[in-house]
Amino acid sequence: MRILIVGLGLIGGSMAQALRGFESCTIVGADRNAEALAFAKAHGICDELCADAAPLLPDADLTILALHPRGIEAFIQTYGNQFKPGSTVTDVCGIKTAIHTAAAHIPNYVNYIGGHPMAGKESSGIENSDAALFQNAHYLLTPRAGSDEHALRLLRRMTVHLGCRDAVVTTPEEHDALIAYTSQVMHVMAVAVCDDPSLFDCRGFEGGSFRDCTRVAALDVPLWAELFSMNAPALIGVIQNLEDNLRAYRQVLEQNDLPALQAKLQYSSDRKRHMSLE
Amino acid sequence: MRILIVGLGLIGGSMAQALRGFESCTIVGADRNAEALAFAKAHGICDELCADAAPLLPDADLTILALHPRGIEAFIQTYGNQFKPGSTVTDVCGIKTAIHTAAAHIPNYVNYIGGHPMAGKESSGIENSDAALFQNAHYLLTPRAGSDEHALRLLRRMTVHLGCRDAVVTTPEEHDALIAYTSQVMHVMAVAVCDDPSLFDCRGFEGGSFRDCTRVAALDVPLWAELFSMNAPALIGVIQNLEDNLRAYRQVLEQNDLPALQAKLQYSSDRKRHMSLE
Repeated sequence: MRILIVGLGLIGGSMAQALRGFESCTIVGADRNAEALAFAKAHGICDELCADAAPLLPDADLTILALHPRGIEAFIQTYGNQFKPGSTVTDVCGIKTAIHTAAAHIPNYVNYIGGHPMAGKESSGIENSDAALFQNAHYLLTPRAGSDEHALRLLRRMTVHLGCRDAVVTTPEEHDALIAYTSQVMHVMAVAVCDDPSLFDCRGFEGGSFRDCTRVAALDVPLWAELFSMNAPALIGVIQNLEDNLRAYRQVLEQNDLPALQAKLQYSSDRKRHMSLE
Repeated sequence: MRILIVGLGLIGGSMAQALRGFESCTIVGADRNAEALAFAKAHGICDELCADAAPLLPDADLTILALHPRGIEAFIQTYGNQFKPGSTVTDVCGIKTAIHTAAAHIPNYVNYIGGHPMAGKESSGIENSDAALFQNAHYLLTPRAGSDEHALRLLRRMTVHLGCRDAVVTTPEEHDALIAYTSQVMHVMAVAVCDDPSLFDCRGFEGGSFRDCTRVAALDVPLWAELFSMNAPALIGVIQNLEDNLRAYRQVLEQNDLPALQAKLQYSSDRKRHMSLE
């Protein structure tokens, strides 16, 4: 099996390393950036390397598109009809509806299944790639209607080899609605917290909760600007909910109503305990 | 040196364990709860144990008040004039202005210095206490005007023995203003996130940022209701700032203005990087 990884950044480079030994595969990496190729070569990250992915598409049994979101969209629009018939194509984009829309350019005789490994870190680029990046992470899969069962099984086995906690199959629409909540708004909160005027005065006063919340604030700006804007309607709704929930806490504090504050804290913390237990 | 710890909960029990071997001290624990005393006895957590702290006060060289916030306030108001002359008294309360106000009941010949170990976990009680709880944590100290230098040096040595990252000396007012930001609002955010209607649908879709942010949501309700209400003005201001900063992100998404979104993300993430580097 030939696996082609298009885009050797943090995710593509980490996948290349983590897929080593998966079903006797040959791992081929493509990246237009000469430095990324040189790093991959120097560190033996792929079996074969190439600057241009296009001529490699007809020979790949599994193609993993690991570019930035708009790059994946553009790649599919340009090269959608050049994938190997019967092969499997997936991507690693953190939103899925827009990518499935672009996937209309991929013929039905190619098995396109969207993917989203829920892993990352604050430092980007292949020089920060890590074979252990996907350990214990959820891997979300969004099959296209009519895609073959054998392609889905191949990707499930791949997530096992990557060390993921599980593979969760969902629709692009459900994926994007839930990811706005579980991932995107967490990043919006982290950057919004860093806009507080006290940020630089508070050194020495940080607890674990502050370090945890702001950990993701030093984000990859072009990547997250694309992710947010490609899922804006869902994200806007989740931010609005959060503003409403924060305002409700603020109002009960302004009313100096201790029983109401206790009742609200009991309600919210019970929800967290209930969610953690199930 | 006799160290008296009043209140054997998570913090008091952890301090008793972590102070073992500190300057040849004898560690005396007091708690009205028979189960807490029995647990401390069974696990050898203190050298001496007693249900009633009052008769122990005249003999203690260092008294650590580790009750809940309102309990510390009431204890000082009731027993403030019974501490040993020349001894040092501190507390572990997460807000400091209200405790310093109560400390007017402690005569000037006793060295009162407020304390706040920035450590904790989601499970309370001595049965969850841990000698390693304070490892690498900031320990905030708020000396009262006129308190002796030797008392402050004693508490600094204590924080070293506890394994803290550092001891930061500040005023009660600055402490409460900054702690509203670095700790209290992080807990308000965590519970507010758990009020989102998607909470129970999102299993399988959580990333590290979601787990980190909501980790503290299963909080000790009576404790945090007291902490929030005793610092309400500062906390209200910080929540309002956060609502404003979230709304600004929401509005740039609603305007579908990608360059403005990128500029905002660059600004916020640069602040985080700048804060982490200094």
